Amino acid sequence: MKQIFFTPGPAQLYPSVARHLKIGLEENIFSISHRSQKFKDIYEGTVEGLIKLLKIPDDYKIVFVASATEAMERLIENIVEKKSFHFVNGSFGKRWQEIAVELKRETCVIEIPFGEGFKDVPEIPKDTELICFTHNETSSGVALNTEFIYKIGKANPKALLAVDTVSSAPYIDIDFKRIDAVFFSVQKLFGLPAGLGVMILSPKAIEKATKLQKKGLNIGSYHNLPSLVDWAEKNQTIETPSVLHIYLLGKVLEDMNKKDIKKIREELDERAKLIYDFFDNNTNFKPFVKNKKDRSQTVIVITLGDKTEEIKAKLEEKGLIVGGGYGPFKNTQIRIANFPAVGDKDISVLINEFKKF
Amino acid sequence: MKQIFFTPGPAQLYPSVARHLKIGLEENIFSISHRSQKFKDIYEGTVEGLIKLLKIPDDYKIVFVASATEAMERLIENIVEKKSFHFVNGSFGKRWQEIAVELKRETCVIEIPFGEGFKDVPEIPKDTELICFTHNETSSGVALNTEFIYKIGKANPKALLAVDTVSSAPYIDIDFKRIDAVFFSVQKLFGLPAGLGVMILSPKAIEKATKLQKKGLNIGSYHNLPSLVDWAEKNQTIETPSVLHIYLLGKVLEDMNKKDIKKIREELDERAKLIYDFFDNNTNFKPFVKNKKDRSQTVIVITLGDKTEEIKAKLEEKGLIVGGGYGPFKNTQIRIANFPAVGDKDISVLINEFKKF
Repeated sequence: MKQIFFTPGPAQLYPSVARHLKIGLEENIFSISHRSQKFKDIYEGTVEGLIKLLKIPDDYKIVFVASATEAMERLIENIVEKKSFHFVNGSFGKRWQEIAVELKRETCVIEIPFGEGFKDVPEIPKDTELICFTHNETSSGVALNTEFIYKIGKANPKALLAVDTVSSAPYIDIDFKRIDAVFFSVQKLFGLPAGLGVMILSPKAIEKATKLQKKGLNIGSYHNLPSLVDWAEKNQTIETPSVLHIYLLGKVLEDMNKKDIKKIREELDERAKLIYDFFDNNTNFKPFVKNKKDRSQTVIVITLGDKTEEIKAKLEEKGLIVGGGYGPFKNTQIRIANFPAVGDKDISVLINEFKKF
Repeated sequence: MKQIFFTPGPAQLYPSVARHLKIGLEENIFSISHRSQKFKDIYEGTVEGLIKLLKIPDDYKIVFVASATEAMERLIENIVEKKSFHFVNGSFGKRWQEIAVELKRETCVIEIPFGEGFKDVPEIPKDTELICFTHNETSSGVALNTEFIYKIGKANPKALLAVDTVSSAPYIDIDFKRIDAVFFSVQKLFGLPAGLGVMILSPKAIEKATKLQKKGLNIGSYHNLPSLVDWAEKNQTIETPSVLHIYLLGKVLEDMNKKDIKKIREELDERAKLIYDFFDNNTNFKPFVKNKKDRSQTVIVITLGDKTEEIKAKLEEKGLIVGGGYGPFKNTQIRIANFPAVGDKDISVLINEFKKF
């Protein structure tokens, strides 16, 4: 039976992925040396695809890691000597703070309930080195306003800013010049198999890591930022990377750039509106995030209460796989990913099924 | 044109990989949740495949990381508070030691020339916490005798032993009970696309990491050994892993177990003999490693001198891709991978081509 994954990652594969994988196999891409010119060309193409799609400034560096979780660790290791500040409104923001604690850094946190956005601008200690934001909380379906992030940055010019855009890139239209580190993984909106993280770094972020390194501090080894950047300049990675993921990402970026990012964003906006409108007007099931301004356009959380398991099972019988709620909401909510791999028709089919419940 | 990769990683894909990938796509394996029962079953199957193929003791733990390079880093971070000892006879042993230095550990090293094996048993400082061996130097084509490793272990009962088997697993028949950490990556003898590392840990290795953690030391965050092991017990990983790699590895392990490890090892021995015999009897081109006891059976290095580039190009015209020499030997040597994905016929074709030079 045909299945459509509305799950927020791993997610529905982008429609061209199967074709790209087939061609990659035929052309022996997954056997070539990661030091060959052919690989360097693939790497360069992927980086160029990212620069074009996301409008990344010339002086920013793009590096590959294994996951967004690794990106969280490397950023703390490399940018924070002592103190980080964390905006926490869900499980992934919390995880990032916990990583900083495990790495023996001092953390300050503003934490608000699951499903809510930040209203107040908190006072941030003057010696904070890195302020960490989760742009789109995959756990709760709350997205931050980029203007809010910029405002915090402006009020704290000495601190660097890092933004987790795991489940919002490339939907989020971010002004990189105001941010020092942005990261995401490829199994969300890019519709790839999981296994690759992408970090985009400002000159100031790299400078800070180099400064800590020169001070003799331990900023990690093969994946410290200076090492990552040095190898990226050569269109390579220090370790043997997942050539498959870098290749597939490059191909999907070509497809997305052909379609144009404006069109992709418009489509996602339209589909999000369809979904939210339906549930706002539904008497039984409501969007979890009450305040419309806080709602994510890419991960839509619906409270189904007692009916959750039953509805999930009925949808699955029709080949429609939705995500469960996160953590404590596992059995009372579902999460619907509004990612580019899911089409207008798929959304209509899902909504029509919901009309029956 | 059909190509055969005799390169030592990324390498020729195991013959069934394309089929497994196709089925994985058809069954939507790369979209399923990494918290689902389906994923846990896949994970468990892969672990069981490893236990069976490699005869891993019941009380040892198997965990997944992104690469062998990551394994090197995590082992130093988690097992070495102060001092590690490194057997270096090539680029990968050297890299491991450099990682320990970058992580601010004190390292002791015995370093011998490229292409040679260790003859003497060095005196190892009594406060050494981890002794690091590269079983098979992918850079130089030298393999250590496992008895040599066991002897060092016996003479230093307080230190833990870690062995890099990147380009020898599962050919190497290792007695896990005498080793505390063994790791490899999947793009070598397992014939998979690059992007996954496997670590096998003794109870003592995990105990040491837990002890350092309890002392309040920084042993890393999401991928520290206690965290890796905790999640492995649940047949999961803390981060979203490369489901694709864990799935493919499980499938190739099924194939290898069906074939039987004894048969795989015998075939590799026979093919290694064919290659070494040919070059030992060749007047122009000789194996780089002179001492037969030091020779790797899985990565065979041949000195071609001035002819290297010309011969590599001529072989490539026939679809035969051999690896270049490593580092300073890039333009004077080739490396021939004798991995399970390369068949008897492929070896004959390669040797027949060499008869023309």
